[in-house]
Amino acid sequence: MRKKIENGTKSRLKIIPLGGLELIGMNITAFEYEDSIIVVDCGLSFPEEDMLGIDLVIPDITYLKENIEKVKAIIITHGHEDHIGALPYVLKEINIPIYATKLTMGIIEHRLQEHKLMDKTKRKILKFGEAMDCKHFRVEFIKTNHSIVDAAALAIHTPVGIIVHTGDFKVDYTPVFGDAIDLQRFAELGRKGVLALMCDSTNAERPGFTQSERTVGFTFDQIFEEHKDTRILIATFASNVDRVQQIINSAEKFGRKVVVEGRSMVNVIETATTLGYLQIPANTLIDVEQLKDYPVERTVIITTGSQGESMAALSRMAGDMHRKISIGPKDTVIFSSHPIPGNEKAVTHVINDLLRKGADVIFQDVHVSGHACQEEIKLMYTLLSPKFAIPIHGEYKHLIAHAKIVKQLGIDKKNVFILQSGDVLELSHDDAVVTGKVPVGTIFVDGLGVGDVGNVVLRDRRILSEDGIIIVIATLEGDQVIAGPEIVSRGFVYVREADALLDEARELVRETLERCERKNITDWGRIKNLIRDNLSEFVWKKTKRRPMILPIFMEV
Amino acid sequence: MRKKIENGTKSRLKIIPLGGLELIGMNITAFEYEDSIIVVDCGLSFPEEDMLGIDLVIPDITYLKENIEKVKAIIITHGHEDHIGALPYVLKEINIPIYATKLTMGIIEHRLQEHKLMDKTKRKILKFGEAMDCKHFRVEFIKTNHSIVDAAALAIHTPVGIIVHTGDFKVDYTPVFGDAIDLQRFAELGRKGVLALMCDSTNAERPGFTQSERTVGFTFDQIFEEHKDTRILIATFASNVDRVQQIINSAEKFGRKVVVEGRSMVNVIETATTLGYLQIPANTLIDVEQLKDYPVERTVIITTGSQGESMAALSRMAGDMHRKISIGPKDTVIFSSHPIPGNEKAVTHVINDLLRKGADVIFQDVHVSGHACQEEIKLMYTLLSPKFAIPIHGEYKHLIAHAKIVKQLGIDKKNVFILQSGDVLELSHDDAVVTGKVPVGTIFVDGLGVGDVGNVVLRDRRILSEDGIIIVIATLEGDQVIAGPEIVSRGFVYVREADALLDEARELVRETLERCERKNITDWGRIKNLIRDNLSEFVWKKTKRRPMILPIFMEV
Repeated sequence: MRKKIENGTKSRLKIIPLGGLELIGMNITAFEYEDSIIVVDCGLSFPEEDMLGIDLVIPDITYLKENIEKVKAIIITHGHEDHIGALPYVLKEINIPIYATKLTMGIIEHRLQEHKLMDKTKRKILKFGEAMDCKHFRVEFIKTNHSIVDAAALAIHTPVGIIVHTGDFKVDYTPVFGDAIDLQRFAELGRKGVLALMCDSTNAERPGFTQSERTVGFTFDQIFEEHKDTRILIATFASNVDRVQQIINSAEKFGRKVVVEGRSMVNVIETATTLGYLQIPANTLIDVEQLKDYPVERTVIITTGSQGESMAALSRMAGDMHRKISIGPKDTVIFSSHPIPGNEKAVTHVINDLLRKGADVIFQDVHVSGHACQEEIKLMYTLLSPKFAIPIHGEYKHLIAHAKIVKQLGIDKKNVFILQSGDVLELSHDDAVVTGKVPVGTIFVDGLGVGDVGNVVLRDRRILSEDGIIIVIATLEGDQVIAGPEIVSRGFVYVREADALLDEARELVRETLERCERKNITDWGRIKNLIRDNLSEFVWKKTKRRPMILPIFMEV
Repeated sequence: MRKKIENGTKSRLKIIPLGGLELIGMNITAFEYEDSIIVVDCGLSFPEEDMLGIDLVIPDITYLKENIEKVKAIIITHGHEDHIGALPYVLKEINIPIYATKLTMGIIEHRLQEHKLMDKTKRKILKFGEAMDCKHFRVEFIKTNHSIVDAAALAIHTPVGIIVHTGDFKVDYTPVFGDAIDLQRFAELGRKGVLALMCDSTNAERPGFTQSERTVGFTFDQIFEEHKDTRILIATFASNVDRVQQIINSAEKFGRKVVVEGRSMVNVIETATTLGYLQIPANTLIDVEQLKDYPVERTVIITTGSQGESMAALSRMAGDMHRKISIGPKDTVIFSSHPIPGNEKAVTHVINDLLRKGADVIFQDVHVSGHACQEEIKLMYTLLSPKFAIPIHGEYKHLIAHAKIVKQLGIDKKNVFILQSGDVLELSHDDAVVTGKVPVGTIFVDGLGVGDVGNVVLRDRRILSEDGIIIVIATLEGDQVIAGPEIVSRGFVYVREADALLDEARELVRETLERCERKNITDWGRIKNLIRDNLSEFVWKKTKRRPMILPIFMEV
């Protein structure tokens, strides 16, 4: 098989990241060789602070649509949102078969069902060691460890050589479920010769080794031992099946019943149990309604909300808005998580609320990362010994930190490529060069709308959010104002106490209209601009605010 | 003097925090005894994420206004915004003399000048060891260390006993300027007997001891040594005069000229130099225009923007928006700061921008905190041996962590008071009890407006920010619609691509109006509500968005 692929052609492989390098998340990369394209991952991003009202951000796949006849497959490394989240949106535009491991596919299928895409979408589950084959590519799945089980690295066998894509990974010698990362296979590939390594950069700033997931289990046991008199609530990421397994193990060991709260937590546990990734002893899970049948110290609640998400179960409990569970002094709440950058204040807010209700809150050192630290990254490079390094997954500062590590390992600076989304990196078996750029971008999802909110709408939302809106309305008959001008404002000032200000504003508009009449200005566009300018200046002088000013004229 | 104060009366001392315990910052506490009130600190808060468009938050001082004849003095512990920032606003409402140390007063006076309050405001500078005296109180200033020089703790001698208020503090045995914290005086007070300790909680979660400010100077020297070929830019807090001093020391040692960028940085350096808190060797400072006269490796730029503030000098440099300084590969940028919670993403954003321009960026371990860690808090309790503990300065979780430390020190749980803003804690010489509540609150400052934006306006801004606004306008003559209905939207959807949706919406409004006419509904309030409900439902069904819907009817 590999013989056929290494066919001595002079064509070059193109690696084209279509997202994921400016905005965190939204991982999607195209690999193109002659008439074939394969796509690795298809993730979404969560909105930045200035993307007001936006729910999700997905990649612009114009390049794939324009080359649709070439696109053979989407290969998914693991089941996190930043790797699978854009699938439903992308599949609505291009219908391409998906390849993934079993649990990953289980999570994807749940999503496809929600979007009614199951019938239309070809899906193939691969085991570790198996490969997806198409004309120019063979994509082999290799076992890794990560904060979700069934995560894969990919060895992409191409006519110009082997590209290894780690996905998100860590090295866990004592994983909770299944095997440790398949270091032997990486070593074999390294021995054969790897052209390029695309390696996870998320923790490239952190020295040392990420601890084993299993250490968190020991911590749970210790906390359960020390809190035998209280109920225990544990918030963690729904997708971290190993973490949930360890909570269930500790619960069983200490004779506690387990309640699962939060929709995404219920979903993942269901999927993972069905597919055999989670072992829940009989009579361990109980329904939230049954909580009252057990003494508090014999129960554990596993819940979503570890990032302080305002609508998640834990936040609702902390804010007295959960219909079935309330927090009190007989509760120990554990955050088995770290705040994702940007969520720090939201998490602290929930912690403060819980403490105010008298709960004991443990929020440090009950979590390990799912990403490789510096020594693991070095291990990967040392096993694979790639010619080229293409740091992926991380903000720009992480990619730079990754590049520094690579330099320490003796890889020539010119062989390290820090790409931007859209860059076309062309590789032959002995060189690599960025040759161009394809169109890329971000598409905002707001409610049901995909792409109907862009920068104009966001700019308006920003202005509205800061200083509100002043609407000036008048009705005209010919050139004559027959009703108004009226002034209505929202989000600008507390109206009842600003009567005088708004009266003055109305007077100013009236004067502007009169002046226009005197000067024979009849172009309503120009009159609107004059009103906007005068009112804006007046309001700025009086309040140092810049509300949106919207003159509307109606004609009878 | 103390004899007179301990006059054997049966009256009780009231300690009333008027802010600072729910929202971080906004520190202000009233101490009341019979006909006298003194106020300690008068700070502001910066707005939380959901306070859209708000510039500052200041405390509601209704209680002080209602008891204005009692209020004798405002005593300021140090010159940070969360301790002085509300002064201009409060002094416009109540004219009270201010007491502070020299640099603190210098910073306050700068603020008073901006607000044209210098003439009206009585000010008295006190040295450490001196005291402010009034009928029932003697408030002694005690030297501490903090991230701004001239910070004071207060020993408040009252008829019922001594209350020690630490202000913000750390223990620095080797401070850059002036003396170490006056531990001997704290020990003396402890020996005499302290009724209550109000102690800084900011770092109560952190074990150990905060490092000396001087260690940062060693780090600077090391970085200067290792980066002899590049320009060096250092971002730090403008108010950290000691930090600035150490940058200047390193610059001089390594033969570099210093440029100061950012208005607040220029102001503080001016004040601190004038008052003798900063020693700048002659010919060290140069103007930004002179940068071009020196090789890059002979220059240092001290700048604001260490928190990623979008308008600060460093962010403008990173974003190519600074008129005089641009960043490139010959730059080493040092963040001598930690991100304040909530600013993490903004700081990372600036770091990424700087890295993209090729600069080397150092953002870890070039900072020490200005607040006491657990061992310093224990030292303070051990020296003062107070009967009652009142943890202050920090979020609720910090106060709780502080209370845990106090418990370890053997202070009875019932003698620890975690207060809320407005609580009235009454103390006699041997007991303490919360007896009531005074009115407190937060007042929003938005531009020139103080208090004219409240929850209604903020709620509108939130709705506008998420989904924009749809305005429905019609003109009536009697019961007859003679113009419209028209529909105008902003921040809701990109209008050019949503023509059909807005046409349907207009049709729906027209139908609603017709139905009202048929059913003889003539109450325009009711008609507006119907339009709002119908349109809201229609828009939700079509888009899953909830814009503000604002029907406006004009009458001819």
